[in-house]
Amino acid sequence: MISKKYKDMLSNKSIIRQFSEFAIARGAQIGYENVFDYSLGNPSVSPPQKFTDTMIDLLKNKNSVELHGYSQSLGIPAVREKIANYLNQRFGMNYTKEHIFMSTGAAGAIAHALRCVTAPGDEVLIFAPFFAEYWSYVNLSGAIMKVVPANVEDFQVNFEAFEEMLTEKVTAVLINTPNNPSGAVYTSKTLKRMADIMTAKSEEYGHDIFLISDEPYREIVFAGTEAPYVSKFYSNSICCYSFSKSLSIPGERLGYVAVNPECTDAEYIADMCGQVSRGIGHNCPPSIIQLAVAECLDITSDLSVYETNRNILYKELTSLGFECVKPGGTFYIFPKAPEKDAVAFCEKAKKYDLVLVPSDDFGVPGYFRMACCIDTEKAVRSLEAFRKFVQDENYFR
Amino acid sequence: MISKKYKDMLSNKSIIRQFSEFAIARGAQIGYENVFDYSLGNPSVSPPQKFTDTMIDLLKNKNSVELHGYSQSLGIPAVREKIANYLNQRFGMNYTKEHIFMSTGAAGAIAHALRCVTAPGDEVLIFAPFFAEYWSYVNLSGAIMKVVPANVEDFQVNFEAFEEMLTEKVTAVLINTPNNPSGAVYTSKTLKRMADIMTAKSEEYGHDIFLISDEPYREIVFAGTEAPYVSKFYSNSICCYSFSKSLSIPGERLGYVAVNPECTDAEYIADMCGQVSRGIGHNCPPSIIQLAVAECLDITSDLSVYETNRNILYKELTSLGFECVKPGGTFYIFPKAPEKDAVAFCEKAKKYDLVLVPSDDFGVPGYFRMACCIDTEKAVRSLEAFRKFVQDENYFR
Repeated sequence: MISKKYKDMLSNKSIIRQFSEFAIARGAQIGYENVFDYSLGNPSVSPPQKFTDTMIDLLKNKNSVELHGYSQSLGIPAVREKIANYLNQRFGMNYTKEHIFMSTGAAGAIAHALRCVTAPGDEVLIFAPFFAEYWSYVNLSGAIMKVVPANVEDFQVNFEAFEEMLTEKVTAVLINTPNNPSGAVYTSKTLKRMADIMTAKSEEYGHDIFLISDEPYREIVFAGTEAPYVSKFYSNSICCYSFSKSLSIPGERLGYVAVNPECTDAEYIADMCGQVSRGIGHNCPPSIIQLAVAECLDITSDLSVYETNRNILYKELTSLGFECVKPGGTFYIFPKAPEKDAVAFCEKAKKYDLVLVPSDDFGVPGYFRMACCIDTEKAVRSLEAFRKFVQDENYFR
Repeated sequence: MISKKYKDMLSNKSIIRQFSEFAIARGAQIGYENVFDYSLGNPSVSPPQKFTDTMIDLLKNKNSVELHGYSQSLGIPAVREKIANYLNQRFGMNYTKEHIFMSTGAAGAIAHALRCVTAPGDEVLIFAPFFAEYWSYVNLSGAIMKVVPANVEDFQVNFEAFEEMLTEKVTAVLINTPNNPSGAVYTSKTLKRMADIMTAKSEEYGHDIFLISDEPYREIVFAGTEAPYVSKFYSNSICCYSFSKSLSIPGERLGYVAVNPECTDAEYIADMCGQVSRGIGHNCPPSIIQLAVAECLDITSDLSVYETNRNILYKELTSLGFECVKPGGTFYIFPKAPEKDAVAFCEKAKKYDLVLVPSDDFGVPGYFRMACCIDTEKAVRSLEAFRKFVQDENYFR
């Protein structure tokens, strides 16, 4: 019989998607180059040439049966080993390949990690503002998502609310740093305090509370910002990574779970991910992508455009009067809307061909998100549209 | 907290895996070329040259940001459309791209299909012998797997048991034709009778019963065997396909769900698969693989070796005295063990460097599976080992 649960979900269309569809439709009318489409977080730069060259080399020179054969369900052992070594060297960790599970992007990594360290009905804490898909990641795993209200001062953690909500029912905490949508990067101070609270509560309740750290923006961190490695701060932690943004290959879906060697049952969790995969059907991410990425662990695409765009937009928006926490990383900016209803504000912006996403789905009403992964030339052209918008609507008068 | 469910699963190691590990370990001692490893169903032939050429062409000539960008969560629209058109032309169906959902292999396709047409606690019928992973596919979706005993005459369907077990609790039936492990291909007669029973029971119970058809071996069908297209026989049907075997790219994980345009809510199910993906984390199979495969829909690898091996092994094994239903397709042979305990039989076979998998995990005790996807030269060399084994153990005397 048709599943009521999934059929009902069809009517909850993502607001990001709705604004993105407007941008595409408007582009068909006036030329997409004239639409200032800040809706989707799709990398706008090429993958490194080495990635492409490695792919071609594998296709031309490696035995094709071996190249395209099944990888082991945890991933290709040599690839897992390279990732462990890379993380050890960079962050001073002690991973071995037994702590690494290859996944289809960070979404796949989170799907596995959540199932390994929660049981249906457990509560999972996340922090506003959050990536809108967290709702489905958590709730469809059988756990229950609870949202810690935002600290709108700097988009670090609202510790008062966090401590209050970290009840005995919570078995996992899911964080995202650098953060989509705020661009905030958790400081050492934030991570240390978070770890102290979680350690104390674990002891008080007599059970483990896992920290799942979603880190697809790890490589997009701007000058002057410190981006500490989360797993250094807390033993019961699992890092979920994706190469989508660092190598600009979001469509190829490759990421990994890295299990802190110091966590409870560290020797089992990657193996358990393999068991989770048997139920959710995505054993073994694509072999050729695993092999190509393994040659590119220490490089990234040229990510400088994101910082350039952040600088241009942050400067202009704040000088126009927008309140905005300066992003330390990612390709997002998250200013406060100049009227209470961010949806109404973003609807008005459409008249100026500015496609901005209201923050309601991110768990903090009254803000808007701009995905600044567009050509700088276009970002510069959009400034005039912002100026006209602000003037026409008499904002900040 | 560590999930008890997934941790407990670690102790149930697949018997296929155990025998495969023996083969690798033994290969390290005597040279893998001297181990007659019939354990794993890994394609042994190259992908078509066109697949490799298309991959290289995409990498060299397509805009890299576009090439590696996110595909829509249901798959790349142009690819879905090509698949719909191909199936329509070949099988006389009426698919549009709205009925096609791109998945990470057949395992991914089944994971999605099951969740779309069952609710937790529903029963799902499968037929012995079955691919051992069905247990986890079904039970980890929240449904409950029930096994219809085998029809060992010809490995078609045991209709008496099927009718009896098709109770009101059953909302889906999962079949696999051509079948792993038996090699049997369901005939039109079998499919017609199955459809008639399911239609009658659906009416009797007043609810839909979906037929999920797992078809990764669709292209491996031998001379003289008819392989009808399952969805032609029953409206409430969903086809789950993988290119792993037809194009010999199991490691690249590409398949699809094709929803019968005549089924209940046909216009929603592919979309619902997109919702399922949000929870299990594998939205969007790899873009480049989608694009390359779309150019290879009407070709396959050179699959003739599988029929050659089937002929050689079937002839020799039956002439030695083994009882065996002649496989109509796949790269498996599934003879009856000459002693009651197939595990004991397969253990003894190891002495002759014959790696055969006992049938217990496939739901029919007393048989063994041979994955004949090896070089023909090796299959021929294995015949002497079989002869010696049978003679030494005094089987068939």
